[in-house]
Amino acid sequence: MITYKEAYNSVLKNTTSWGLETVHITASTNRILATDVFADRDFPPFHRATKDGIAINFKAIQKGETTFPIEGITSAGSPQMTLKNTQNCIEIMTGAVLPENTDTVIMYEETEIENGKAFIRKKPEIGQNIHRKGSDEKQGDLLLKAPLKITSAEIGVLASVGISEVSVFKNPKAVIISTGNELVEVNQTPLPHQIRKSNSYSLLALLEAEKIEADLMHLIDEPEIIKKKLSEALKTNDVLLLSGGVSKGKYDYIPQILNELGVEKVFHFVLQQPGKPFWFGIHPTLKTFIFSFPGNPVSTFANYHIYFKDWFAACFGLKKTAFEAILAEDISGSETLTKFIKVKTYFESGQLFAEAIPENGSGDLTSLSRSDGFVKIDPGKGKVLKGTRVSFIPTRKII
Amino acid sequence: MITYKEAYNSVLKNTTSWGLETVHITASTNRILATDVFADRDFPPFHRATKDGIAINFKAIQKGETTFPIEGITSAGSPQMTLKNTQNCIEIMTGAVLPENTDTVIMYEETEIENGKAFIRKKPEIGQNIHRKGSDEKQGDLLLKAPLKITSAEIGVLASVGISEVSVFKNPKAVIISTGNELVEVNQTPLPHQIRKSNSYSLLALLEAEKIEADLMHLIDEPEIIKKKLSEALKTNDVLLLSGGVSKGKYDYIPQILNELGVEKVFHFVLQQPGKPFWFGIHPTLKTFIFSFPGNPVSTFANYHIYFKDWFAACFGLKKTAFEAILAEDISGSETLTKFIKVKTYFESGQLFAEAIPENGSGDLTSLSRSDGFVKIDPGKGKVLKGTRVSFIPTRKII
Repeated sequence: MITYKEAYNSVLKNTTSWGLETVHITASTNRILATDVFADRDFPPFHRATKDGIAINFKAIQKGETTFPIEGITSAGSPQMTLKNTQNCIEIMTGAVLPENTDTVIMYEETEIENGKAFIRKKPEIGQNIHRKGSDEKQGDLLLKAPLKITSAEIGVLASVGISEVSVFKNPKAVIISTGNELVEVNQTPLPHQIRKSNSYSLLALLEAEKIEADLMHLIDEPEIIKKKLSEALKTNDVLLLSGGVSKGKYDYIPQILNELGVEKVFHFVLQQPGKPFWFGIHPTLKTFIFSFPGNPVSTFANYHIYFKDWFAACFGLKKTAFEAILAEDISGSETLTKFIKVKTYFESGQLFAEAIPENGSGDLTSLSRSDGFVKIDPGKGKVLKGTRVSFIPTRKII
Repeated sequence: MITYKEAYNSVLKNTTSWGLETVHITASTNRILATDVFADRDFPPFHRATKDGIAINFKAIQKGETTFPIEGITSAGSPQMTLKNTQNCIEIMTGAVLPENTDTVIMYEETEIENGKAFIRKKPEIGQNIHRKGSDEKQGDLLLKAPLKITSAEIGVLASVGISEVSVFKNPKAVIISTGNELVEVNQTPLPHQIRKSNSYSLLALLEAEKIEADLMHLIDEPEIIKKKLSEALKTNDVLLLSGGVSKGKYDYIPQILNELGVEKVFHFVLQQPGKPFWFGIHPTLKTFIFSFPGNPVSTFANYHIYFKDWFAACFGLKKTAFEAILAEDISGSETLTKFIKVKTYFESGQLFAEAIPENGSGDLTSLSRSDGFVKIDPGKGKVLKGTRVSFIPTRKII
């Protein structure tokens, strides 16, 4: 059996890529940008008025002028005007191009307008209320560096530079496979010895957040059927996420059948709790990756966040962000196992604290809805004391 | 002009509700659960084996027995078996129902099986390796308390209790309205005095994350056309999110036209930066809410996060989560305005630090892609020193 650290490194070493594709900007949120984005022009592309008022030539101010006949009016979306007489002014609206021969904008609040003339109440600063051409970015500047997860802020940048079709990394095609004769559908009433499927739906929601397209499949404990269905799944998917059937039971056929189908096992069983009977393998020619998680809800949920999420990010070359939380109470570790303890977190004085969720073993699904993630307690640590900073793996959005 | 605090309280006081609907569990992520969810049975619903091995009656152990003839085998998904002779054992797989007349499970690793008999190597504890019926939750226990944002963890709970159709709060129907003659489409090449639309696409991405269905609309600066289109938009939407056209310019027709269309202004202009010319109003009979943001990208983006997000959460009765960050450098406030400063955040020693993004006024769109949110600096604070804890409004996922 290998350690968590070995297992983690092993998963992260086995990354792959599924190529590129373009998607419409409105479909690009949460996708991974694949190509650097540069400014196609200066930003702003012209000297831009940032207030509603009048545009003047500051030389007139220097000559002591306080009254400016209004030559014209310009607004956002109008081509650039020219101030013909530098003793005059042009009325200008926010977002408009600064007229030729002007260099200063005085806002309406500081003027009085009467009979086609603007009187100014106070002396302006030269160049005021102008967002200068190229002052944010110069044409050719790097705006977004790939790889990068696209969020609403990046969408704004993409739109500004005219990228309506965005080059992103392709996501894998996945299938979520539940196993076990005890499982019935959500809308069925289970017999006393049965339970409803839940892992598949949790995983589906997790993959949806990454915009990974996934099908659902269920396998009953019949070797011939499992083999046929897995053989097909390996060919038509890039990633298989299984839950159940990987422990030491007599009907845990998955590892043996994956082996028969040519999948190379990278490891099976990890010195961790929960999630010990995790099986990870790769089909060498089909390039299908198999994450075969133990069937307990907490084990599947934990291993998805511990291994799959980082592996998925690493496949795009995204840097892993590591988080820490401060223990709000003592937590017991294990001599031999890396322990992942469900915690509730809270902020206090700008610090992130974690307290353990009362739990009842890895079958305790409902505790996941009360937790924000797992803290990782390394083996051989015994009791880890309140106030210690530990590694934190979030399972929902914290901030 | 009102203060930020007055504006915020005013927005939060004017909440509404759009009723309930049911959605399939696979479409329920990020929706707001509207009905409490209870356990429909005990969890686990039966004494459940947590290891693969043998189930025995502990009385035999007390009698000194170490060898157990195997009476049968049971696995997950099989109806409960009965151990007929309490000197015997039944082979049992993880997830199976504990057989009648047994109370202890010994894992394979601690047994040797030969000639239909299991020898045990060490004395077990009574009741070991059993996840006891109802030990997680009792039938009728409250599992999920509405209102609650549904994430993958809650999906698992919903599936377990058989809720394939989930009762959620209805989201508003929204329209995102850009204004201004200077704007062209993303896929067009702007003339020197034009710029591409970007606010609409950022807002669309933000609403998508909340699963709010939104259309896009553009208004040119023509009062008659604006009036006709806004009149229609007010009738067919619950929320209007506008950007631009609400300042003091000659072509800022929006406030006047909304007034003519019967919308009641709650406020216009807030003592804040960026985002000052924010206009907020409600149509009293149509119950349409209008968030009319200033057109600068940073202003729109800031005000969406400052006002709309909290308002939207409050409409469902969700509690607001307030965050704080620690300033990594001195930041200058304003005498009269509440300032929202773009910051990059980082974690160090379990603490969230914020440092200001070099910025260039509220037109600087690209700086949003480098920032994680805004820190709020109250008016009259002058310089706020490094190390001070300040209110932090995230604009992307931090943890």
